[in-house]
This record gives sequence, C-alpha cells and structure tokens, in this order.
Amino acid sequence: MQRLPGVGPKTAQRLALHILKRPETEVEALAQALIEAKKQVGLCSVCFHLSSEPVCEICRNVNRDNNTICVVADSRDVIALEKTREFKGKYHVLGGVISPIDGIGPEQLTIQSLVRRVSQQQPQEVILAISPSVEGETTTLYVGQLLKPFTKVTRIAFGLPVGGDLEYADEVTLAKALEGRRELD
Amino acid sequence: MQRLPGVGPKTAQRLALHILKRPETEVEALAQALIEAKKQVGLCSVCFHLSSEPVCEICRNVNRDNNTICVVADSRDVIALEKTREFKGKYHVLGGVISPIDGIGPEQLTIQSLVRRVSQQQPQEVILAISPSVEGETTTLYVGQLLKPFTKVTRIAFGLPVGGDLEYADEVTLAKALEGRRELD
Repeated sequence: MQRLPGVGPKTAQRLALHILKRPETEVEALAQALIEAKKQVGLCSVCFHLSSEPVCEICRNVNRDNNTICVVADSRDVIALEKTREFKGKYHVLGGVISPIDGIGPEQLTIQSLVRRVSQQQPQEVILAISPSVEGETTTLYVGQLLKPFTKVTRIAFGLPVGGDLEYADEVTLAKALEGRRELD
Repeated sequence: MQRLPGVGPKTAQRLALHILKRPETEVEALAQALIEAKKQVGLCSVCFHLSSEPVCEICRNVNRDNNTICVVADSRDVIALEKTREFKGKYHVLGGVISPIDGIGPEQLTIQSLVRRVSQQQPQEVILAISPSVEGETTTLYVGQLLKPFTKVTRIAFGLPVGGDLEYADEVTLAKALEGRRELD
C-alpha cells in the first residue's frame, strides 16, 4: 500500500486495516476491478492518452478541431485541460518530460510519434502545454525545435495565477509576467 | 497590538509581554522611532510611492527609463517588482484598487494624477501590473480606457506560475494560460 503515490506509512496502515475488516466478497470485487482496469485501459494509438479503446474518445470526436494539437507531459494534464472546457482541439501525451538524471531521454517519450503525426497531419498550430520546471522547459524547447519546420508552434503563458497577489508571487514568475505583457484590448 | 496586520490575540500578547520586560530606555527608543518614521515617510509627489523626500529615489534616478511607467496598486508591489531587477522604468502607485463595496471609487485613488502625468509626459508605454482579482480587473480596465488616448497600454501576463504544475493550476488560470499563449522563438 505504501508504494501508492501520496500514501505514507499511517495511511497505508489505515487502508490495510480497513480492507481486512471488509467481507471477503467485497475485497475480491476490488481486486477484480483493479485487474480489469489494468487489462482494459491502454494508451490511445494516436495521442497516447489513457483509453479503453485503441483510439481514445477525444481523437475519435469529429466535433473537435484537428488543426490544433496540444502537447502535454501526462494524461493528468489532459484531464486538467479538459476541465477548463476552453480547448477544442486534439492532444498528444508525451508520457513525461526529458530528464537525464532519471534516465529519461527523448527516446523514452512519444516525441518521435508526435513529429511523425505533425508532419503527416499538418495541423495549423501545436500548443506546448508543459509545466514550467527545468525539465519541462528543456522538453518544450526540444520539441519546439523539432516541430517548427512543419507548423506554427506556441506555448502556454507564464505569469501571475488568477486570483494571485503580486506581492506573493516569486521573483521569477513576476519577471515572466512582466516579460510576457500584452497590449490591452 | 492586535490591530496590526497579521497579529492575532496570541501574538499580540507575546509582543506586549516582551515589550513590558525590556528596559524603559529601549521602549522609549522604539516609540520614538515609530513617531519619527511616521513623520518622515510620506508619499512621492510624482509616483505616490513611499518616500522620505518630496520626490522618491526611483523618480529621481536619471538612469531609469522615463518612457515606461508601471502602474501598481500598492507600494508593496513596487518593492516586489524592484526585487526582480527586471524593470528599469518608473512607477505609479494607485493606492489601492477600485472596490465599491469598500467605498473605494476612482476618486479615492491616484488615477487622476496618473492621467495628468501620462498626458503631459507622453511615455511610450504604460504597463498595468495589478493583481488579477475582480477589483484588480475592474481597475485595470478602467485605467486602461483612460490612458489609451495618450499611449500604448499593456498589462502583465497571467498564466502558470514558474515551477508550478499544470495539474495543480486552477481552471481559470489554465484557461488564461491557454488564451495567452505565444509563439515559441
């Protein structure tokens, strides 16, 4: 239990004791559900988002714009972006960010498939929506260079979070917010 | 003591007891320092930043760019922006944001002085660096409309804070980050 993300020794004990208290049938149902989920959920062959079908729901949706591809590091980011209901294009999940320290190079990610997809599909725009960490920045620049020959490449804005206070923003964020200023419309 | 910002009943008691324990001369020195500070620190007659002189150090600095004015709500924001060492222009402190609920209208702020200053000085750019709250947005739009006839008006970027994670960003911030995307250079 302790090997699950966000579960420390205390929570692990609580979970384990709770499961031991439940009737056997219930525990079997949980175990079965875990096995089923693992069996059924794979990756979409187009965008590498989690999917129980060979091609995911977003990629199959004909109402979504094929001309914009939003590149994210992880399936969690697709879910976060879908919640905003602002983005109507398609996605591409890299499966992580370039991080030599953790032994993750470009080959371990779905970058090659992305380049192939973009060169074939010729979308009007590729939006890089990768978290602004050191590894994220490296990945953004690397992927950007590879895609530029084929299409317009943009990246999401960095700056003050909405509802945030100037005074509490760190210096790098403030500097980025100043640098990224836009004309008022 | 409890009326100071960020000081609750417990901290107030601790501060009061500490002061009562100190020698009389030390307490007198503190009291005198407070009175002196209050007497000497006023507002800069140009930008309304805190200053012990009639015109503040930033306004008097000839090495700073007169062609850019950064408009902020509070003196604290000037200090925050100065820490980034990215901005080399002048400031204008509004003294708050428009907030009808708290009885703060445009007249209670230094907006009129700002408009006069901009119309006379004709800077190349005015950057609105006001925190993205509801009141801050109102103030940004109001001030922006007034200044547009005289100069280029920009606003700082909203988006993901640097080092932040896409997954943990709220939906409005994510939507703003998508909307404010820029072409990769």
